[in-house]
Amino acid sequence: MTETNVKETLTFFVISDSAGETASKLAQATMAQYPMINFEIFRRTFITTKDALIKALVDAKSHNAMILHTIINQELVQVADDFCEASGLFHFDVLTPPVLEVQRRTGIEPTREPGALHHLNKNYFKRIKAMEFAVKYDDGKDPRGFLEADVVLLGVSRTSKTPLSLFLANKNLKVANLPIVPQAHIPKQLWEIDPKKIVGLTNDPKILNNIRKERMISYGLNPDTAYSQIDKIISELEFATELYNKLGCIVINVARLSIEETASMILNALNLEDHSYFITDDNED
Amino acid sequence: MTETNVKETLTFFVISDSAGETASKLAQATMAQYPMINFEIFRRTFITTKDALIKALVDAKSHNAMILHTIINQELVQVADDFCEASGLFHFDVLTPPVLEVQRRTGIEPTREPGALHHLNKNYFKRIKAMEFAVKYDDGKDPRGFLEADVVLLGVSRTSKTPLSLFLANKNLKVANLPIVPQAHIPKQLWEIDPKKIVGLTNDPKILNNIRKERMISYGLNPDTAYSQIDKIISELEFATELYNKLGCIVINVARLSIEETASMILNALNLEDHSYFITDDNED
Repeated sequence: MTETNVKETLTFFVISDSAGETASKLAQATMAQYPMINFEIFRRTFITTKDALIKALVDAKSHNAMILHTIINQELVQVADDFCEASGLFHFDVLTPPVLEVQRRTGIEPTREPGALHHLNKNYFKRIKAMEFAVKYDDGKDPRGFLEADVVLLGVSRTSKTPLSLFLANKNLKVANLPIVPQAHIPKQLWEIDPKKIVGLTNDPKILNNIRKERMISYGLNPDTAYSQIDKIISELEFATELYNKLGCIVINVARLSIEETASMILNALNLEDHSYFITDDNED
Repeated sequence: MTETNVKETLTFFVISDSAGETASKLAQATMAQYPMINFEIFRRTFITTKDALIKALVDAKSHNAMILHTIINQELVQVADDFCEASGLFHFDVLTPPVLEVQRRTGIEPTREPGALHHLNKNYFKRIKAMEFAVKYDDGKDPRGFLEADVVLLGVSRTSKTPLSLFLANKNLKVANLPIVPQAHIPKQLWEIDPKKIVGLTNDPKILNNIRKERMISYGLNPDTAYSQIDKIISELEFATELYNKLGCIVINVARLSIEETASMILNALNLEDHSYFITDDNED
């Protein structure tokens, strides 16, 4: 019985009047709870007319899909509800409950402007600057970036410095990173900045060894090079740990952490806020 | 009455056993519907024990917060529900409805492993590669990247090429980009690739003019430089449009689009899937 069920593919339809990021993340979080099931996600984004919505719903019905939607127009929400009730389709309205709670508390109507999440306000410039900053000061390219950065990431090879920098840049933070290798010169700027801005990334030697071996294989190279020798990795990590202690920075072991999880820990540890959409500080430059 | 309400700050508490990305996006989407209201978001992430959860809930109560949570442990969900009911706090369980629907359909229990969204699987490597690729082939640094890329973005200055490349890299796509300036040499590799992989970015001249002026001001420079002169902008855009026509690529005007919206359009137009968490294609290299 269970065997049969596992073999069928379950379908999510993400329907949104905007880019569908919220409902997509929810579909992915749900899918991750069932690694043994095959899923597919269809996205129907920028749905702002009744015709487009009905087309998406008919399509969803043909897949017997589970519908997750974020639609702000009440008439369209009603269309979706009625269609799904009549067709016996699972549907989950993600956006309405919190929007109505704010209305209940304040007596203020929502703007009901689709995609209001994505206005091109001053955050837009801040974010573009943060991303350009991350690209410019990636990989220790220019240590002068440390002085300007909100966060400086240090780490041996394969501790996710670049992806982490870019992920944090997406949250409007200026991030510079520096690879730590025993032989390398440590730029003097590192000692000039507040250690509370520095994060030392480390990893378990065995995991690092496996990651590096896989990397070598994926590059079509011999996995047993010095780069992946465990003794060398241990001495690299020791060198890094010693440096982190001298600097007095926080240290995060990324061994079992995803980029999202590490980023979230950095935000918490450094007391930084995710300003990806809203800036509450009026003193922003 | 309304005036008074606007002045108070409304608080969201995002409580998650993982990084809290889904509920954060939902809080932001809700906040965007009420531009006249002051909001704050508090994140309580990696909450996996009853003690930590109760601490977060007590804190939320002291802020009279609206609680959005994604918690997979049923006992913890029950604790949150009971606490919020007893305290009269608004709470919205974002994750349970779709998880239970999958269980209903398949008879399979969810793994109930917190943060299951973020497993370090082969996507991890694909994503790291995609991000490194975006940094390496940003800004036309090396046109050989075009041949390897999933998407090649072309655009005049300030059409969000770098942020877009990084955003798409986060969805595991290899993206290269090239700034289009009338005087510049167009690399021959551009004519060797499938035009279906190329996206030409354009913008409204007036908006571009304003963006560039603001950029000059933010850099402490005179806003009325050649860089922001409208005639020059128009001729740049004409040059770009001509090139796009010759290439036969799709063209997107980013004038009123956010990065998320443009990225979503590119995914749709190029028939690409968001593989940020799951790869369904078994033939992946």
